[in-house]
Amino acid sequence: MSPSPFAPRTLAELPSIEGVRRAACEAGIRYQGRKDLMLALLAPETVVGGVFTLSRTASAPVEWCRAQLAHGQARALVVNSGNANAFTGMKGVEAVQATAEAAAEAAGCDPSEVFLASTGVIGEALDSARFTGELAGLAQAAEDTAWEDAARAIMSTDTYPKLVTRTVQIDGQDVTVNGIAKGAGMIAPDMATMLSFIFTDAPLTQAAAQAICETGVADTFNAITIDGDTSTSDTVLVFATGAASARGVSEISDASDARGAILAEAVEQVMRDLAHQVIKDGEGLSKFIAITVEGAQSNEAARAIGFSIANSPLVKTAFAGEDPNWGRIVMAVGKSGEAADRDKLAIWFGDIRVAVDGEVDPAYIEDHASAYMKGAELEVRVNVGIGSGSGTVWTCDLTSEYISINANYRS
Amino acid sequence: MSPSPFAPRTLAELPSIEGVRRAACEAGIRYQGRKDLMLALLAPETVVGGVFTLSRTASAPVEWCRAQLAHGQARALVVNSGNANAFTGMKGVEAVQATAEAAAEAAGCDPSEVFLASTGVIGEALDSARFTGELAGLAQAAEDTAWEDAARAIMSTDTYPKLVTRTVQIDGQDVTVNGIAKGAGMIAPDMATMLSFIFTDAPLTQAAAQAICETGVADTFNAITIDGDTSTSDTVLVFATGAASARGVSEISDASDARGAILAEAVEQVMRDLAHQVIKDGEGLSKFIAITVEGAQSNEAARAIGFSIANSPLVKTAFAGEDPNWGRIVMAVGKSGEAADRDKLAIWFGDIRVAVDGEVDPAYIEDHASAYMKGAELEVRVNVGIGSGSGTVWTCDLTSEYISINANYRS
Repeated sequence: MSPSPFAPRTLAELPSIEGVRRAACEAGIRYQGRKDLMLALLAPETVVGGVFTLSRTASAPVEWCRAQLAHGQARALVVNSGNANAFTGMKGVEAVQATAEAAAEAAGCDPSEVFLASTGVIGEALDSARFTGELAGLAQAAEDTAWEDAARAIMSTDTYPKLVTRTVQIDGQDVTVNGIAKGAGMIAPDMATMLSFIFTDAPLTQAAAQAICETGVADTFNAITIDGDTSTSDTVLVFATGAASARGVSEISDASDARGAILAEAVEQVMRDLAHQVIKDGEGLSKFIAITVEGAQSNEAARAIGFSIANSPLVKTAFAGEDPNWGRIVMAVGKSGEAADRDKLAIWFGDIRVAVDGEVDPAYIEDHASAYMKGAELEVRVNVGIGSGSGTVWTCDLTSEYISINANYRS
Repeated sequence: MSPSPFAPRTLAELPSIEGVRRAACEAGIRYQGRKDLMLALLAPETVVGGVFTLSRTASAPVEWCRAQLAHGQARALVVNSGNANAFTGMKGVEAVQATAEAAAEAAGCDPSEVFLASTGVIGEALDSARFTGELAGLAQAAEDTAWEDAARAIMSTDTYPKLVTRTVQIDGQDVTVNGIAKGAGMIAPDMATMLSFIFTDAPLTQAAAQAICETGVADTFNAITIDGDTSTSDTVLVFATGAASARGVSEISDASDARGAILAEAVEQVMRDLAHQVIKDGEGLSKFIAITVEGAQSNEAARAIGFSIANSPLVKTAFAGEDPNWGRIVMAVGKSGEAADRDKLAIWFGDIRVAVDGEVDPAYIEDHASAYMKGAELEVRVNVGIGSGSGTVWTCDLTSEYISINANYRS
């Protein structure tokens, strides 16, 4: 697969976060010649918040994480690529159990403190015996650098690893938020990216970690779509080691107070950057597109209209063809089912207003819009003339390359 | 555009229907060298039933038809291709008015008895002056044969005209139902095909015509999807001239009594055949796929799961790649939001059971499924293990050809 045209020239260098060590290896689960298994060790007292796919056919690892999240303590995270361990019946549950037990032994913790994620093909049994033997070695090798290795080990059809870091000041001390993610297809709202893991040394209560995770995903991972398809494995976990408390940072128990808000904002920035990186690695894409809807009945309605536009094959193929075909945007607004006043509808490509008051703008010059469409990063703005709701979603175009990738993924 | 692999070798020959005459011509609205304007003249006392797009940005002709349907009498139908007269503001309303007036004069009726439909590009003003002058000539030329001409004149990206006929016996007499349709993209539920017109010589009350139209579309045009996109122009009209009453067929006032049911069944058969023809002309398709969902909470839930499968780009591209990738079907069931018991889920390709009890069938041999997938007409059956709701939807695969067609439609 050729790399995305948006692949970053240089990857972000992530600082170490006290209380988090990682290692990755080639377990040969499906891919050859690349790392496909990642273990992260987390300091005692690490709390975790999480958000998972809404799929009714969620994978075995997702069900495991949901169950462990109830107590909210984490000492280890094991992620494999190549096999999603989804729709694998009792064998899938057994593989999860065996992996958690092996990781617990390697990390010196209880299996309930082990979090798991798997990504790759659905419906094939995951042979955990193939890699549980690697976990003890990974635990010994774990170090506080090597973020890129971890980000690479969780990739499936991704063409580049996705890493972000932010540092903020809380109680006069630097607190760090690092994030990694994977995802390039089967990406839609209700847990957009397949997998993302955020780590911070901030001291958080479990409730605060959960709240910061939930508010973070709303306008980031839950505001992107590549193909409208929702994975059975989508998982976002926020791990807080609390190591910064040794430097005088006191515990954050309320995600919305002044100190909590600083951290929540940093986490949201990390998530948004990762979410954009996921779209920019969309299978076969040639354009990155931000779609802003204004004038809707509510913010939720604006989001729904945005996704109706972003998921329309006809809109997406028009972008691929660099065609300012705003008629298809009108169609997608109409099919969303949300209130829209056809005769007040206005549409912009970048700063070019193409339609106003329900018809083509009298001043519109198609050559200008055609020239704009040749850019790699595009903005569409739509005002539906009803109320004051607004929202932005991000997507990519739909190309022949997407078809080639997905018609041949398993073979 | 190359013709669909499903294009019929010979077209259906439709008998004449007393009370309906048609003509078509080249008005040069957009296409060159092909007929793009069709006029049908309907006998006095013809009643009409109709169903239209649920789009919130419906076209001017759709709004016109909705308004005229209130009185339910029709004397003329004018259809143009090349321009949808959608999102054209006041100019669109004026074009509709001018067309109805010209057709009324040509047909010797009131403008309110003229029904209109337009299909083609959205957002460009329709210059009705270009073709209103043709209507008088068309009215003079109208004859009771020439169904193929009419079916061709309403095509846009279609690669073949779509015609169906059925004859049934009511009151000991032959009653005929003829139908034509167009549509090859922007096809989704809530008025699936863009345009379809059904004609019968049966004598119907307007209420019966409306009821027969509504029940007919439910499991036909509203059970197909090509790309999940909903047109601003979708229109299905059923015209009943009543000419058979001269042969002793008494009026049908109840669509659900014994006589009404015979006609309703014939109309539904015509609609289903046309709906399948629309899918078989899906842009760039290589496979025609029937998806049956059983064991759902309700028939509506089964339909929703069916469409979630049918509209998934990942499922559609797997079909294009002839890959029995049932994991993606699991994904699409999961994302539908409808109840499904993952651990009771079963999936068949044709007669081959690939999954049972939530995991791969122990007896499954992938080579058999791969061989089945090479067929042109495929059946998928899914049991979601919850209740007794069931339903079938029809769709096609998603190929690189779809992208090429739609990335370049306007240029």
